[in-house]
Amino acid sequence: MNQESFVDVLIIGAGPSGLMAANALRHAGVNVRIVDKRATGVAAGQADGMMPRSLEILQSYDLGKDIFEIGTQVHLAAFYNPSKQGDGIELTRRVPNCTIASARYPFGLTLHQGDVEKIFERSMSSMGMCIERPLAPTSIVVSQDDSVLHDPSAYAVKVHLKQPDSESEDEAAEVVNARFVIGTDGARSWTRKALGVALEGAQTDYYWGVIDFVPETDFPDTRNYVAIHTHTGSLMVIPRENDMVRIYVQLDKNALEMDEMGNVDRTKMSADRLLEIAKASFHPFKLDMKDRNEGFKWWTIYRIGQRVASNFSVHERVFLGGDATHTHSPKAAQGMNASMGDTHNLAWKIAQVVHGQADMSLLKTYEFERRQFAQDLILFDKTYATLFCGKPLSEINTDGITHEELYQAYQTFGGFTSGIGICYAPSAITCTSNQGFATGLPVGQRVPPHVFVRMADALAVEIQDMLPANARFKILLFTGDHTRDNYTDDIQHFADTLGDVLTRYQKGRSPDIVTILAGDKDPARILSLPPILRPHWSRVLVDDVDAHRRHPGGGYEKYGIDPSRGAVVVVRPDAYVGAIAPLQEGGVLKGYFDGFLLAQ
Amino acid sequence: MNQESFVDVLIIGAGPSGLMAANALRHAGVNVRIVDKRATGVAAGQADGMMPRSLEILQSYDLGKDIFEIGTQVHLAAFYNPSKQGDGIELTRRVPNCTIASARYPFGLTLHQGDVEKIFERSMSSMGMCIERPLAPTSIVVSQDDSVLHDPSAYAVKVHLKQPDSESEDEAAEVVNARFVIGTDGARSWTRKALGVALEGAQTDYYWGVIDFVPETDFPDTRNYVAIHTHTGSLMVIPRENDMVRIYVQLDKNALEMDEMGNVDRTKMSADRLLEIAKASFHPFKLDMKDRNEGFKWWTIYRIGQRVASNFSVHERVFLGGDATHTHSPKAAQGMNASMGDTHNLAWKIAQVVHGQADMSLLKTYEFERRQFAQDLILFDKTYATLFCGKPLSEINTDGITHEELYQAYQTFGGFTSGIGICYAPSAITCTSNQGFATGLPVGQRVPPHVFVRMADALAVEIQDMLPANARFKILLFTGDHTRDNYTDDIQHFADTLGDVLTRYQKGRSPDIVTILAGDKDPARILSLPPILRPHWSRVLVDDVDAHRRHPGGGYEKYGIDPSRGAVVVVRPDAYVGAIAPLQEGGVLKGYFDGFLLAQ
Repeated sequence: MNQESFVDVLIIGAGPSGLMAANALRHAGVNVRIVDKRATGVAAGQADGMMPRSLEILQSYDLGKDIFEIGTQVHLAAFYNPSKQGDGIELTRRVPNCTIASARYPFGLTLHQGDVEKIFERSMSSMGMCIERPLAPTSIVVSQDDSVLHDPSAYAVKVHLKQPDSESEDEAAEVVNARFVIGTDGARSWTRKALGVALEGAQTDYYWGVIDFVPETDFPDTRNYVAIHTHTGSLMVIPRENDMVRIYVQLDKNALEMDEMGNVDRTKMSADRLLEIAKASFHPFKLDMKDRNEGFKWWTIYRIGQRVASNFSVHERVFLGGDATHTHSPKAAQGMNASMGDTHNLAWKIAQVVHGQADMSLLKTYEFERRQFAQDLILFDKTYATLFCGKPLSEINTDGITHEELYQAYQTFGGFTSGIGICYAPSAITCTSNQGFATGLPVGQRVPPHVFVRMADALAVEIQDMLPANARFKILLFTGDHTRDNYTDDIQHFADTLGDVLTRYQKGRSPDIVTILAGDKDPARILSLPPILRPHWSRVLVDDVDAHRRHPGGGYEKYGIDPSRGAVVVVRPDAYVGAIAPLQEGGVLKGYFDGFLLAQ
Repeated sequence: MNQESFVDVLIIGAGPSGLMAANALRHAGVNVRIVDKRATGVAAGQADGMMPRSLEILQSYDLGKDIFEIGTQVHLAAFYNPSKQGDGIELTRRVPNCTIASARYPFGLTLHQGDVEKIFERSMSSMGMCIERPLAPTSIVVSQDDSVLHDPSAYAVKVHLKQPDSESEDEAAEVVNARFVIGTDGARSWTRKALGVALEGAQTDYYWGVIDFVPETDFPDTRNYVAIHTHTGSLMVIPRENDMVRIYVQLDKNALEMDEMGNVDRTKMSADRLLEIAKASFHPFKLDMKDRNEGFKWWTIYRIGQRVASNFSVHERVFLGGDATHTHSPKAAQGMNASMGDTHNLAWKIAQVVHGQADMSLLKTYEFERRQFAQDLILFDKTYATLFCGKPLSEINTDGITHEELYQAYQTFGGFTSGIGICYAPSAITCTSNQGFATGLPVGQRVPPHVFVRMADALAVEIQDMLPANARFKILLFTGDHTRDNYTDDIQHFADTLGDVLTRYQKGRSPDIVTILAGDKDPARILSLPPILRPHWSRVLVDDVDAHRRHPGGGYEKYGIDPSRGAVVVVRPDAYVGAIAPLQEGGVLKGYFDGFLLAQ
């Protein structure tokens, strides 16, 4: 007899994408399990780049300090090109690695994928949850019954799980009935294949080798991101933990030996061989391994594919995310970031539906938002990989790539690669109609960082830290200038609106509001606000310099909010701006929430 | 039979002062034990103020993030005085709580003494150490034999320990033979009394009551430090954890009932009575307890004593620290800070002697430095308490205190109360002879914070974080302008000097050096330094703006160092400037270390 169980959400695959989902759902109080077919986590190598927006996201789960404690920050990018003297390479320019001024953490961060996984596991463990492994699905069936599919409380998906190494089919097997399933089981996703979802796109003819080791070198940029172009191929250098670097080496397809399947024959390649190729390209700089006894920490070789899944969900009951939905080159360290971004987008939506707060239609916005992002990612990747892998312009390669072309692309795509520039298109949860009330808070983009001052105690507060990823919508109320004529009326009107919204959707629970006053620090002004706008003293901020003049204020101006009228900003649980409203028109706020929330 | 054991250092008393010593010594690899007669730590109340320098010190033990996570930051100070309308009190001014621009953490921080103790205990526990409790000394004998006293490896102190509640004398007793003993057992120190060390000074006629509770009030400054002066007495308000405040209420001696011993009769006083007195002084603001069922978290009543121990050590074998050596009013939250400062000063000295690195004469600097500080503290306390407890100037009190007098004192003593201004007088370890080479780094004061840029990876680095409290001396090498004529000679001369010093005192171990270049970020310049000046790439900084222009550079100018000649700065293990030397004169450095270090 198979053991049978019930769960709200089952997650298949415990890489960064699956763990992001598991941690977020558990944090939001959802009954969730996560399984992985591997017996242990990743020990070395694999994805290692964390982009600025990912750092903001992790911080919103209160995991920032863990990440910063172990990660290697990469602040500068150095570009090397063929020396003008014609012998070897030389430095062309060195610039900030993150080109986006509004990034809260303006740098990349490298760390071992296993360390990222451990941070999620530790967080989950503190909530009494762990990865169940090794445990793999053997079948998945989604109900075809409309009445089941339309009932969010129904267990619409049946998954058989089995220990991969168990000999007896029956004994070790388990049948899990799940309301929702998330498949984050990697580029060769079992879930995707089982559901018959296609990967659209193609392989490329770009082959790369990767080696992780501690270098002995007179090359000055081993602690910066480096892009090296030579006449014989391109390289990337990425600093890592414990004085290591990762070097990506472009490989000449014609020099590679293929096996019968047309894949690279790994047995004919070695880490030493990759180092030899890198050495040649580093000339005139010397490059070697610091300690031969230490050897290489990790190495691999791969061909770049550029594909996107045709669907990201089946009936909004099974969702795919991470590498299961998109594969691309590692040139801009997008893999782990895009994967975590998928499930950061998905988790709060499932949580709201599971908790009966939102309509199931909310779940459609996952594919809408993240598949578009994945397609943009592949488009970017094609452009960038072509530039990166192309030969440099020279007398022989008259149609080669100039450094300026690559550098311009690096700058142009900075918003995209940092993750900061992501802008979700209009939908039920992304309403652009009152953008003019807060021109510096583009609807569909994440709330940019700014330091305000907490009114009661003059503590400098980063607004992003007031928007934790707790699966709940937040309201930022910018009250505007309190000396204006209609200030009191505006405030009272909004307080009434908020009261109505809370009654309708939250059974009157205290609001997730941050009230941001204009003007000077004066704690006495807190008490003049209607109580619903100050559920706790810590939720009232002011747009002023802090007590020590280390933060300049200017938040209204930065966010494009006119102090003579103020603004209401609805922030989605993932910290993206969902809607903007005038204080005086309660209907805007009500209309927005009516679009997808359920009255309680 | 008594059990007999041997230990390098025995600490008696596990309050913040003893725990600071235990944690520091264990961290420095010293064989140390700490005992306390109480069965458990402090559960509520007691000392709760952490001043800016204490925060820097805790950060130097890598405990900053623990403290900040749980502490309540106090950024503003508000002063209330009798209303000019003659009815109740009104706000006179609100200013930054920390008036010292160079503070790295420009605020006070309140937290429950038990929480401070737990942070130390957790740190010790990670090093495999815990407080032994309840365990109390019953006798202490210091050897009178000169040959023993002069031999740092001799076990010169014999202490009998016993569980306070054990019935059988013999069974539970233990004889500990210690090389050194630290007595941090509080104001009524058993150790101090057993050694016959006198407390010099006197009681005052100032009596104070203290209550901790969650207020219900329209007083706007419950999250700031508040000094209130009324015609009937003074009050202080201190914000605490969990929305609590602590209110200090000055009590009229004549209205207090005394017991037969002349002490205040606590049975005739209550927390409710203290709240009633506070309420009267808060007029016209309302003040009450938010939830009567919650009640008071803690309360006490005490008389201020202002005393200093006549000696801080006996033969430099037993040391006294913390409240055992000084008692004073809590008006400027000095108690816990001064106590931790004592043992932060002492621990590295003992560690150096125990490890055979320094001569025993080093230990004499403890009393020299900390007794002077304690005397200064009492002097300050007398002045400040007189102002604070005095009646306000009025038509009746024509010799009363004006707000301006108190406020000026608050500003003037800011350096002292913050702990930042402490300056140790010249001694073997504090050599002022080359101050002109770094006028912004006063010898005897702690190294002020400044953000430099790490050359290899452009990471912004706070110099204080390069000076961890690991019981080792550090050298800051400011190389100066590398385009000057004698740059290469200067650098090589200093590299040779450093080589000699390391050979003599450290058996050639790699140096604790931070090399700070002038000029622009350019990682290629690291490789041009002699290897001894760059034991690891992370130890080379540059005085430049960081990659994101968030930190302005300007360190040479701030520290008063002329780039045309550079400077060598020796930093003591406790992060105080010990000596300054020109690069070209190796003798200065050698002479300094010869004064107290032992050749290996």
